[in-house]
Amino acid sequence: MTHRVFNFNPGPAALPLEVLEKAQAEMLDFKGTGMSVMEISHRSKEFEAVINTAEADLRELLGIPANYKVLFLQGGASLQFAMLPMNLRPAGASADYIVTGTWSKTAIKEAKKLGAARAAANTEAEGFKGLPTSLDLDPKAAYLHFTSNETIHGVEFFTEPTPPAGVPLVCDCSSDFVSHPIDVSKYAMLYAGAQKNAGPSGVVVAIMRDDMIERTPENLPVMLDYKTLAASGSLHNTPPCWSIYMVGLVFQWVKKMGGLAGIEKINRQKAGLVYGAIDNSGGFYRGHALADARSLMNIPFRLPSEELEDAFAKEAKGAGLIGLKGHRSVGGMRASIYNAMTVEGAQALVDFMAEFQKKHG
Amino acid sequence: MTHRVFNFNPGPAALPLEVLEKAQAEMLDFKGTGMSVMEISHRSKEFEAVINTAEADLRELLGIPANYKVLFLQGGASLQFAMLPMNLRPAGASADYIVTGTWSKTAIKEAKKLGAARAAANTEAEGFKGLPTSLDLDPKAAYLHFTSNETIHGVEFFTEPTPPAGVPLVCDCSSDFVSHPIDVSKYAMLYAGAQKNAGPSGVVVAIMRDDMIERTPENLPVMLDYKTLAASGSLHNTPPCWSIYMVGLVFQWVKKMGGLAGIEKINRQKAGLVYGAIDNSGGFYRGHALADARSLMNIPFRLPSEELEDAFAKEAKGAGLIGLKGHRSVGGMRASIYNAMTVEGAQALVDFMAEFQKKHG
Repeated sequence: MTHRVFNFNPGPAALPLEVLEKAQAEMLDFKGTGMSVMEISHRSKEFEAVINTAEADLRELLGIPANYKVLFLQGGASLQFAMLPMNLRPAGASADYIVTGTWSKTAIKEAKKLGAARAAANTEAEGFKGLPTSLDLDPKAAYLHFTSNETIHGVEFFTEPTPPAGVPLVCDCSSDFVSHPIDVSKYAMLYAGAQKNAGPSGVVVAIMRDDMIERTPENLPVMLDYKTLAASGSLHNTPPCWSIYMVGLVFQWVKKMGGLAGIEKINRQKAGLVYGAIDNSGGFYRGHALADARSLMNIPFRLPSEELEDAFAKEAKGAGLIGLKGHRSVGGMRASIYNAMTVEGAQALVDFMAEFQKKHG
Repeated sequence: MTHRVFNFNPGPAALPLEVLEKAQAEMLDFKGTGMSVMEISHRSKEFEAVINTAEADLRELLGIPANYKVLFLQGGASLQFAMLPMNLRPAGASADYIVTGTWSKTAIKEAKKLGAARAAANTEAEGFKGLPTSLDLDPKAAYLHFTSNETIHGVEFFTEPTPPAGVPLVCDCSSDFVSHPIDVSKYAMLYAGAQKNAGPSGVVVAIMRDDMIERTPENLPVMLDYKTLAASGSLHNTPPCWSIYMVGLVFQWVKKMGGLAGIEKINRQKAGLVYGAIDNSGGFYRGHALADARSLMNIPFRLPSEELEDAFAKEAKGAGLIGLKGHRSVGGMRASIYNAMTVEGAQALVDFMAEFQKKHG
């Protein structure tokens, strides 16, 4: 039997086993073509079916309205941090950012390189532990940007912030994409690096309302130009075919799991198990995020000492629980329990936590 | 037995069968980690070994001097068309481009969006069939750019153009990368989309002399900033892990094939077979490129009529020879015979060409 572990990596992260098995099975001969999906032309009817099916399944999963385009892009969310203001912020205008962790802080930093951006809120002084209690919104902002789930700090929005009338809402949802239902019509743009919930690294999925695409100024480099990329159906140049193929397989798997409502139920169950273990540890385990901002995806927590944290990571690894070391900026541990993490895996972590506490507490 | 075809696609293109088989075999458990290579952290020691080995093998294959960095980037060569002038062309300076086909024409177009660029030569009036007979070089150019192999027009440089003293030579070698030995020390920068000779789509390999990296101006968006990307060892953000892994497997395979000298010998043999079939057809098959510019990688050719060309593509496909339809801008047929195409495949094409001519000629 193949050796597999419980993979709590923050991204690249666990993929559903049956998705990997399917990719493995058709590796040498994709749908009778006699070629791998990596070897077929991105302009062939076979690859068109791959990308079109991925888009159609995503539209079904998220209920994406007809006046939105779906784009498959490269460069990670980090390149979007620059493309966004290049395309959506007219010359001289300012954009608003809600800063709730490392990723939104990085997003506004990139936006400021290219023009005006201001923080409508910033929770850094409180250690990026919660959601902002109030927003200082610019009614003339080119857009309002927020990060729906902060992967490093484990802080998640469960309701969208409300921008002033006429201000488009833009969301980096890299680490909670397709993990629960959302109302896409509230957003002008959503974008997500795939390598958490949706597939391997190498592709970013962006969902953009048509009027946003019209904002693209003349004469941008083509690969930084949403309008050109949208007009070509993400095929202006050779796309990251393998990553798009894998994302498509993951979307099919999510549909089989009951869609976003089905997957959210499982995600809540897993998060409930891990937060329960933290809360019932009598203070041995301490979560980073405040109760009302606790991410269902990334759960950073501390132990009584760094020595115990090192021992936890090491012993967990020995028990087949991988990727639990926290990000250096927060320290401690972090359990990332994306869609592909099973309830069995979350339970194994909870059991290990209890055992570790009994031994070392 | 697995169904496999002879794949003449221009890119994404054929991959070596043993590379695919290795990727397939370790799909669920990469080197005993209990995870796919897509599921491990890009900051893990296992992935560090993947990217470092890929770089070391490439350094060995190409004999890359110590004062060059190797970068793994995203966005295709098309994004490099913009990053190049952003990073290497100082404000107010001009860059020279040698235009010998669609790709170099696109490269200069992108460069002109962002500043001054001039054509040191342009063979478009002659139908992009040959190499320029003379160059009108700017001795103060920020760099001289050329495309070593034009994928669509099948025109290849076999000797580097010589820039004026002090002008750095920059090369888009997407479609003849690692297909023959080169003297890297003649170049300031080389870059290649992987999806022809080196792997699947989704990654660009760039080789840059250290002084080029120092040209990067302040305050570029991080994902467009060679200096930041080089300083992070291509790990500023999550890289396209799978594509890098596959490229690494291909580099190992090229080493096994006798390195670049070994692979060039095979490439010359294959090209000799196909050009021989064209030249010995009594004019039934007509190559696009002039004799001294004939690409060893992409061989565009015409038949006496478009009807015969359609029949050729269709019957070839029936015989298991895939991807032979030419690019719409040139018409006719195109045989792309990159590293992973076997001599057996080239011979099968040649046999088919003879048979087709006998039947229809």
